[in-house]
Amino acid sequence: MFSLILLIAATVLLYYSRTESAIYAAIGFSLYGYIATDKLIPRVGPSFIKIGLFGKDMSKPGKPVLPETIGAVAALVYIMIMFFCIPFIFFRYMVIETQGGGQRESTIELLNNDQLKTFFPHNKLSEYLSSILCLESTIIIGICDDLFDLRWRHKFPLPAIAAIPLLLVYYVDFGVTYVLVPTIVKDCLFHGKKLINLGVFYYLYMASMAIFCPNSINILAGVNGLEVGQSIVLAMLALINDTLYLTMGIPTARDSHRFSAILIIPFLGVSLALFKWNKWPAKVFVGDTYCYFAGMVFAVVGILGHFSKTMLLLFIPQILNFIYSCPQLFKIVPCPRHRLPKFNETDGLLYTSRANLKEEPPKKWFIPILKLLNKLKLIDVEYHPKDGSIVSCSNMTLINLTLVWFGPMREDQLCNTILLLQFMVGILALIGRHAIGSIIFGHDNLWTIR
Amino acid sequence: MFSLILLIAATVLLYYSRTESAIYAAIGFSLYGYIATDKLIPRVGPSFIKIGLFGKDMSKPGKPVLPETIGAVAALVYIMIMFFCIPFIFFRYMVIETQGGGQRESTIELLNNDQLKTFFPHNKLSEYLSSILCLESTIIIGICDDLFDLRWRHKFPLPAIAAIPLLLVYYVDFGVTYVLVPTIVKDCLFHGKKLINLGVFYYLYMASMAIFCPNSINILAGVNGLEVGQSIVLAMLALINDTLYLTMGIPTARDSHRFSAILIIPFLGVSLALFKWNKWPAKVFVGDTYCYFAGMVFAVVGILGHFSKTMLLLFIPQILNFIYSCPQLFKIVPCPRHRLPKFNETDGLLYTSRANLKEEPPKKWFIPILKLLNKLKLIDVEYHPKDGSIVSCSNMTLINLTLVWFGPMREDQLCNTILLLQFMVGILALIGRHAIGSIIFGHDNLWTIR
Repeated sequence: MFSLILLIAATVLLYYSRTESAIYAAIGFSLYGYIATDKLIPRVGPSFIKIGLFGKDMSKPGKPVLPETIGAVAALVYIMIMFFCIPFIFFRYMVIETQGGGQRESTIELLNNDQLKTFFPHNKLSEYLSSILCLESTIIIGICDDLFDLRWRHKFPLPAIAAIPLLLVYYVDFGVTYVLVPTIVKDCLFHGKKLINLGVFYYLYMASMAIFCPNSINILAGVNGLEVGQSIVLAMLALINDTLYLTMGIPTARDSHRFSAILIIPFLGVSLALFKWNKWPAKVFVGDTYCYFAGMVFAVVGILGHFSKTMLLLFIPQILNFIYSCPQLFKIVPCPRHRLPKFNETDGLLYTSRANLKEEPPKKWFIPILKLLNKLKLIDVEYHPKDGSIVSCSNMTLINLTLVWFGPMREDQLCNTILLLQFMVGILALIGRHAIGSIIFGHDNLWTIR
Repeated sequence: MFSLILLIAATVLLYYSRTESAIYAAIGFSLYGYIATDKLIPRVGPSFIKIGLFGKDMSKPGKPVLPETIGAVAALVYIMIMFFCIPFIFFRYMVIETQGGGQRESTIELLNNDQLKTFFPHNKLSEYLSSILCLESTIIIGICDDLFDLRWRHKFPLPAIAAIPLLLVYYVDFGVTYVLVPTIVKDCLFHGKKLINLGVFYYLYMASMAIFCPNSINILAGVNGLEVGQSIVLAMLALINDTLYLTMGIPTARDSHRFSAILIIPFLGVSLALFKWNKWPAKVFVGDTYCYFAGMVFAVVGILGHFSKTMLLLFIPQILNFIYSCPQLFKIVPCPRHRLPKFNETDGLLYTSRANLKEEPPKKWFIPILKLLNKLKLIDVEYHPKDGSIVSCSNMTLINLTLVWFGPMREDQLCNTILLLQFMVGILALIGRHAIGSIIFGHDNLWTIR
């Protein structure tokens, strides 16, 4: 019944997308995507288990076996609806404003502005196609990782290769490699120049963004619903930013934010359906495929939408999680193989998991820092009751830190707490971006021409 | 050592591709693709077996276990080299003919012909991107089929969905839905009109081509090296046709055949490496992934290169194989689960496999046809020595037919015989296309303007 209402709503939206904005089509297909993902997941789950794609849920009594890599279903539904979406997005160019069949006359004959408008926007189509291409390549990388457990050094550069078509289209369509310099810095260092050209480094920066975003979502994981939940929060934050630009922004910024909304709204649709099945108590696991895919959606939007720096601001929780993990990642503090919170079967709550510092002590110079972090409530250090030496510390992940701050809790509470923190940090980042941004840079592109 | 020579040759070709044709880049990357595929296959084979992707080679003593789906390696290497290939193909537009960074000025300022040439060919980029997108989607369909053994009714429409971006780009860029009418027919039926517009049916025709090509390669399979071998023969035939157009064709036809060559040459590279491992005695199986992928390469080239009808001529052996199989596919004659030739361990030769017509007799009306086919040497029917009733017949596949014609032979001989037949039919088809085509249609686009 609920599905039927959604289906009708989606169809109505698609009908109006012909004359109204392409965003209507994106919302319509988002509803289709929700329904398709929601119906497909329970049907394909057993097949995934049959071919060995399953995992044990360690934070449940009895450690039930759940299908793994189900995020691939959501990701592939997304790709499919984006295919169907293309004609609706470009409808006005194909049928209304040209004589049908797109514009095929030689460009030489066209001289006035009105006629130029009827040109089919091949560059927009290239952007759109390269985005889907990049996402599809990322899905393949994710599937390979889920199937074969690729080694870090092998899979690390792969997202950057997946992003090649994207960077090429960026080069051809925009080629903007200038960045704004904060007003204070420019007076001291750059002889008053407002823009500096990063050139090829800007492409390296974008390639590293394509590597960072997918991996950062993959690292903040391990609690039912957290991978999808954080992606949904990110999508909502990005959409809030897009809405700001589309309703009150300057016209030149609207195009890229419409593009961003068209990519993110269907993503939100399939993710919500996946969340329904992955939230506590999880019926399925999402797998690396979904994490890579979700991260790349934001990387793509940030790169081709020209707000990669704003996008990175939304990733602050993920960045903090990475920085916080560094002492263990670089073996300054011993890192156990699994750092997920520990499940206590008697009260059903999750407790911080701990690194044993008795057997493997941390680097000497880091001990004062550990003690300081403990004072600041940024870690939980356990001291020996007699000699006062360090026995253990909580593992350095945002998940464990949340447990240090708010005490043991049930898995769904933990997930919701982290998501709420993430959302608040994101909102603050957006406010900071638009309020403080205009102070530092002298202007903000929400209101003045960038 | 051999690899080193190839590497150097590839690099030299890439260097010259900057100033010469983009085909140099395609040949260069084809060599890279050959080396990468050749080195990767033996490394990843054990991982495929470990996750359950393996099959038994039924036509060998002891039925050895071989990794399955290895064609996915070749296909993914192809996608990766096509990514790297993009900048080389569009190099002249990005760097030489514009001031770097592509052309970004407003189109209104450009009025003369020379300046228009410096436009970046966004439509060509769209074609290229949509082709890779379509191929990548086909690879995902293939991988899903290899992993989950999709049902026929589910997987049948999927290649058409993968082809959506392709058809859209065709619509936008060309939108040509006219077909030439043979001179004789036009006088009788179409009041002397030389062209008839198929409209939307032309798109249905192209979509069915996207379904037919992948499946037709998948059906003519089951002998070591045959899937890859027939794809290599098809690639060579298509390249011969491209060479004809590129060397002596009219200028308007050159663009699409350059495009075709750029897609097929790297495909030939990865396929040759795969053939090295899949040929008798096979070390790996290619899986459905490769069959779908290879078929789609030809569908893409045929559709966007505007010679889908010529391309279908090259598929005559596959079409004949399908027609020949129909009586068994539609259960007019009983169809055993496997129709592969039977391996005889004592002499190491393959014999025709047979359908038992004693237990399950064929439809009555088909018996005279069976007897006629037997007379024509198009099938081998076994009669009961006493009552003259039909006991069995050879299975209706091109592979079994070859064995009926030339007698039992070793697997590699069988494969080579079929490939040779296929090559000869293809050459005849090309000759027919250009010689007889000009008689039927009044002209041939190799020599006159189409």
